[in-house]
Amino acid sequence: MTDEFRLIERIRALAPSCLEVEEGIGDDCAVLNPPAGERLLVTSDLLLEGVHFRRDWTCAADLGAKSVAVNLSDLAAMGARPLALVLGLGVPDDFAAGQLDALIAGFCRTAADYGVALVGGDTCRSQQFLTVAVTAFGTAAPGRIVRRSGARAGDCLLVSGELGDSALALRLLQRGENPPPEIAERHHRPRARVELGKRLAAAGIHAMIDLSDGLIGDLGHILAASGVGAEIETAKIPLSGAFRRALADDPGLFALALGGGEDYELLLAAEASGVAGLQALAAGIGVRLSVIGRVVDEPRAIWLVDADGERRRAEPAGFRHAIGK
Amino acid sequence: MTDEFRLIERIRALAPSCLEVEEGIGDDCAVLNPPAGERLLVTSDLLLEGVHFRRDWTCAADLGAKSVAVNLSDLAAMGARPLALVLGLGVPDDFAAGQLDALIAGFCRTAADYGVALVGGDTCRSQQFLTVAVTAFGTAAPGRIVRRSGARAGDCLLVSGELGDSALALRLLQRGENPPPEIAERHHRPRARVELGKRLAAAGIHAMIDLSDGLIGDLGHILAASGVGAEIETAKIPLSGAFRRALADDPGLFALALGGGEDYELLLAAEASGVAGLQALAAGIGVRLSVIGRVVDEPRAIWLVDADGERRRAEPAGFRHAIGK
Repeated sequence: MTDEFRLIERIRALAPSCLEVEEGIGDDCAVLNPPAGERLLVTSDLLLEGVHFRRDWTCAADLGAKSVAVNLSDLAAMGARPLALVLGLGVPDDFAAGQLDALIAGFCRTAADYGVALVGGDTCRSQQFLTVAVTAFGTAAPGRIVRRSGARAGDCLLVSGELGDSALALRLLQRGENPPPEIAERHHRPRARVELGKRLAAAGIHAMIDLSDGLIGDLGHILAASGVGAEIETAKIPLSGAFRRALADDPGLFALALGGGEDYELLLAAEASGVAGLQALAAGIGVRLSVIGRVVDEPRAIWLVDADGERRRAEPAGFRHAIGK
Repeated sequence: MTDEFRLIERIRALAPSCLEVEEGIGDDCAVLNPPAGERLLVTSDLLLEGVHFRRDWTCAADLGAKSVAVNLSDLAAMGARPLALVLGLGVPDDFAAGQLDALIAGFCRTAADYGVALVGGDTCRSQQFLTVAVTAFGTAAPGRIVRRSGARAGDCLLVSGELGDSALALRLLQRGENPPPEIAERHHRPRARVELGKRLAAAGIHAMIDLSDGLIGDLGHILAASGVGAEIETAKIPLSGAFRRALADDPGLFALALGGGEDYELLLAAEASGVAGLQALAAGIGVRLSVIGRVVDEPRAIWLVDADGERRRAEPAGFRHAIGK
C-alpha cells in the first residue's frame, strides 16, 4: 500500500516532459505554452475494468501503454501533433504496488516514445475496479486539421495497416484460447498512427477518422458527417497473415475485419488523383495504405462489393455501449 | 437504457459553448482557439462512487455540478480564466436514465454559469460504480499565474469564505443525521472562486492554493513549495453561523475547520501592506477574505496560536488516499 502523495511523487519522477511544458505535475494546474497560432485539439478516453479490459487478460504495463495510444490515435485522426496527457487513476485495494508501478511505467514510456508530456491528473482509491481516465491534447495549424465531414463523392477510401487483428485476439481470449503473439500484440499494444496522421493532413486529404469501433461503424461517422455514402470492395480490406490463416478455418471471422473494434488504424477519404502520392508518403514511414473503396453520392449508404462484383448493403455495425437502465 | 451515441447526442444538445470553441463534441477531437499569448492551464479530477460520493447522499444533478466546481476551483487557485471542460462518464447498469439526464443537466448548467464550454469526453458502461472523470483547462497571461511557491516570510495568510462546513456536513451524514440546509449546500454544491482567483492574481499576490484536502494539509503544500513556515491564529479562522452552533455543542468539531476537506475556498499569501486592498477587492464581488495568520521563516513548520496566545505545533493533517495493496 502506498499513499496518494507518495504515488504522485513516483509518477512525477517518471513523467516525460516536452518543450512546451512550463510546469508539469505539482501545482493546482499544469502550465503549458502551446505554439502560437496553432489550434488546440482535445480528446479523452475512459478505460474501465470489466468493460474495456480484464486484469487477467491484460498486463498492467500494456494497459498503461494502451491508454496512451487510444487517445493519441484520436489526435492522429485529425492530423494533430500530440503535446500532453493527463492521467486519472482509480486504484482498487487489491491492486499490488508492483502492478501500479508497471502501469505507470508503461504509460510514461509510451508517452515518451511519442514525445508527449504527462502534465497532471488525479490518483485515488477506487471501490473495486481499476479506472484509467486519460485526456490528451495536441496542436495543429488551423488549415491542417482534418475533420470527418470533408468526404466527397468520387473520393477514394483508404485505410492504414491491417484490420481485424485486435478483434480476433479478443474473440480468442473470450473463447479461452491464446491468441498468436502478433495478433495479441495488436490487441494489447496498439500503436497510434501519429506521424502518418500529420503527413496525411499536410497532404490535403478530405476526411479522416481512427478505427476504434470497427470499419463499418467508423466509416458511418464519416458518411453521416459528410452527407455521402460508400462502396467497399471487401477483397481489398487489408488483412494480416495471421488473420488470413484464422479465416481459412472459419470464414465467418471476416465480420471482425468489418465490424470488430480497436484497430486504431486511420480511415480516410482523398481525391483519387492523389492516391499514389499518399501511398508513397505512407510507405516512406513504413506504413501500408490500401484503397478499399470509394465515396458515392447516396447519403449514409454503405455497399459491400465482393470479389465477384456482387453488391449487398452493409449491416449497421460497430460497437456501442448500452448505458444505464 | 440508452445507447452510447444517443447519449452523446443528448450531451451535445446541452453542452455549453464559448467563443474559443471552433468545434465541440462530434469529431475525434474538439478544436479550440485559446487567446494568443496566453498560457494554457490544465487540471483534472476523478469522482468515484463509494470513494468520493454515495448515490444515496448526493443527488445526480449536484454530482454533475460538483464535478465542474472542483475542477474550476483548481483553475481559480492559479488565477486562470476557465475555458473548457471534458467529461468522462462510466455509468453502471442500475443507473436510471432520469438520473443520467439530471447529472448531465447539472454539469452543463454549472459549466454555463461559469461561462465554460463542454467540448468532449467519453461515455461508456461501467461494471458497477458510477465514475465521473473531468479535465478542465483555462488560460492566463504568463505574468499573472499564481503558483504555490511564492510565499515569503512576513506575508499575511488569507482565506476566502468560511471553512469546515463541507466536512461538517459529511460528518453528520456519516452519523446518519441530516445536515442543516446551509451546511449541506456547501458539501453538495460547492462554488469555485473563479472571479476572486482572477482578481487576486491580477493584484499580484505571492502564492495561492484551493482548499480541497483541508486547511492544514493544503497550507502544507504552499509551505513545502515556498520553503517557509506559517503561524495560524485559530480564532481568526472564518466559520459560518451554523458551524459555530455545532461547535457550541461539540468543541471537538473545530478539527474539521483545520483538517476537513472540500472547502473549495482559496488560501493565499500576500504582502501585509496590500491586505486592505485585497479585502476591498473581494468585498466588491461579495466574498469575505480573512487574515488568518502569517508566513514565518521556519521551513514547513505550522504553528497554531489560540486566542490566549498559546502556541502549539499543528498535527500533520489533510486527507490522503491509501492506494493499492
